[in-house]
Amino acid sequence: MSKRTDDRPIIAITMGDPAGIGPEIIIKTLSDASFYVKSKPVVIGVSEYLNKALKIIDFRLLTSPISNLNDARFKFGIIDVLEINNSIYGGVKPGEVSEKGGAASVEAIKIAVDLILKGQAHAIVSAPANKESMKLAGCKFPGQTELLADLTGAKSVTTLIMISNVRIFQVTTHVSLKRAVEMINKTKVLETIKFADRCLKEMGIEAPRISIAGLNPHAGENGLFGDEEIREIAPAIKEAKKLGIAAFGPFPCDSLFIRNRDGEFDAICTMYHDQATIAMKLLGTSSTMAVGLPIIRTSVGHGTAFDIAYKGMADASAFKEALSTAISAANKRFSKI
Amino acid sequence: MSKRTDDRPIIAITMGDPAGIGPEIIIKTLSDASFYVKSKPVVIGVSEYLNKALKIIDFRLLTSPISNLNDARFKFGIIDVLEINNSIYGGVKPGEVSEKGGAASVEAIKIAVDLILKGQAHAIVSAPANKESMKLAGCKFPGQTELLADLTGAKSVTTLIMISNVRIFQVTTHVSLKRAVEMINKTKVLETIKFADRCLKEMGIEAPRISIAGLNPHAGENGLFGDEEIREIAPAIKEAKKLGIAAFGPFPCDSLFIRNRDGEFDAICTMYHDQATIAMKLLGTSSTMAVGLPIIRTSVGHGTAFDIAYKGMADASAFKEALSTAISAANKRFSKI
Repeated sequence: MSKRTDDRPIIAITMGDPAGIGPEIIIKTLSDASFYVKSKPVVIGVSEYLNKALKIIDFRLLTSPISNLNDARFKFGIIDVLEINNSIYGGVKPGEVSEKGGAASVEAIKIAVDLILKGQAHAIVSAPANKESMKLAGCKFPGQTELLADLTGAKSVTTLIMISNVRIFQVTTHVSLKRAVEMINKTKVLETIKFADRCLKEMGIEAPRISIAGLNPHAGENGLFGDEEIREIAPAIKEAKKLGIAAFGPFPCDSLFIRNRDGEFDAICTMYHDQATIAMKLLGTSSTMAVGLPIIRTSVGHGTAFDIAYKGMADASAFKEALSTAISAANKRFSKI
Repeated sequence: MSKRTDDRPIIAITMGDPAGIGPEIIIKTLSDASFYVKSKPVVIGVSEYLNKALKIIDFRLLTSPISNLNDARFKFGIIDVLEINNSIYGGVKPGEVSEKGGAASVEAIKIAVDLILKGQAHAIVSAPANKESMKLAGCKFPGQTELLADLTGAKSVTTLIMISNVRIFQVTTHVSLKRAVEMINKTKVLETIKFADRCLKEMGIEAPRISIAGLNPHAGENGLFGDEEIREIAPAIKEAKKLGIAAFGPFPCDSLFIRNRDGEFDAICTMYHDQATIAMKLLGTSSTMAVGLPIIRTSVGHGTAFDIAYKGMADASAFKEALSTAISAANKRFSKI
């Protein structure tokens, strides 16, 4: 990593699909001057779309298209845009799935990874891309996270979901509920706990307190409603404790989200997809962090929201959180440079 | 049902376990004069505990112990307490599991049911009882709802959970998640939808819009993550529609709670225990209605909260909701008397 000229980390913000709310949430975020105090943000994308969004919102900001990162000024009021090639990626219609939109989001990610790997930027914050558009553009990965894993040679990548101080790790995700139940075993639970511990420490939490959700109602109520807690989850927690990890549970998951929200723990390990996502949607805007990548990358819990693109209605709070998290993580990781 | 002397329904409020927050949430509720405008509340319990709670909270209310419902005044400021027998049930210590506390809650329920069956009261609102105390008192039922079912000869009872305008019906409840997945079939889902439709109509909702949650992540995403939606849930919804029920779904459950909260539907049918309870805890205070009983009975979503009994800290909002719901249901059911 090259020596930085000042303390602020350089954050590569990828624009996502230009047919969605990416450009709008980016400019809403960069209209907050405090982000320039804490970081040097640069957008990887096409200024045409950012200008379009700026017109609708009427912020007093300008975009400054650049073709080389060295030309970035990192100054509040002027958004540095590292152009990915306007002639190729311009003209995407709002709210429409398109090959061009998909290609633009893929290209932005590629350039961002390249910057990071060359040591020219410290973290990536990505606006949402559209899976269908990416597929049309010939991308063989189901999403940006998988693309990032491929580009950085990462073996296994997980998404950490964050809603203010609630941090959710998942033992299983996109499988049927039946399969998720079958997949819960001591090894997998222990792996997730160890992984959570490592990630939280990397994020700057010194002695993370990790809570583990049960699988069954009332966490099984001593085997009355299922014995996975007794057979698999509790032994994994015991093992984690032996390794010096502050792991607690298994707890009934319904009240555990409240306990995490109220600060009793630093993270919660969930057993299946909807256990995490029901809470996530109700707790508010969420940002995500890809864990398992060799680079720092955060994003948002929501999608491209094609239906409200370029209408000025998009909520940028999740994106702001994603940027804040990326800045913290970059400061932590590169503090010794 | 005897003819009422005025329009207000008579509501039998059972005190629950005196070691818990029952007495406190009852007096907090009855300190709201509007409940006396809309109903004639009478507490079935022991005035000793209500007086104790009154002392701590310092409301300007009095209790009036009565041994016959005919002596009730139903007047704001004086809480009518139909005494269940102070010499037997007095002296229970706050926050402690006890045979006496359990016996008191059982006795209050029995008297309340008796009043209803004799046509002297219109609905029951019950403060929480303690399952362990009830067991110590020799009650063979796991909770007040099951006791009520036995006393009224009801065959199957379900609990409808209500959090402001979110009404939750459950296809399965207290079974392991593995078993819940196995239990999801067209017949069971259809039964729940029909049941929900009937209940909502009884509650006064003319043309209820019922939403049905999926079982799997993203409601299975067209069979990608499980096929119960395709095999069982969707056919049940189709069948319900044929019967003239406004049933919709299956929808991904995580966003469905938000849609219900925002008023898009009148109720949500959930597939397993925690799908309902995670949302329930995060949506706020909940009241419950026992459905399947021949009588009207509402309660609260929380327990006895022994740890905060007689400290003045208990939140009565769920109990107020439970009382409001009971009043509405009684007005609906007995409007033609």
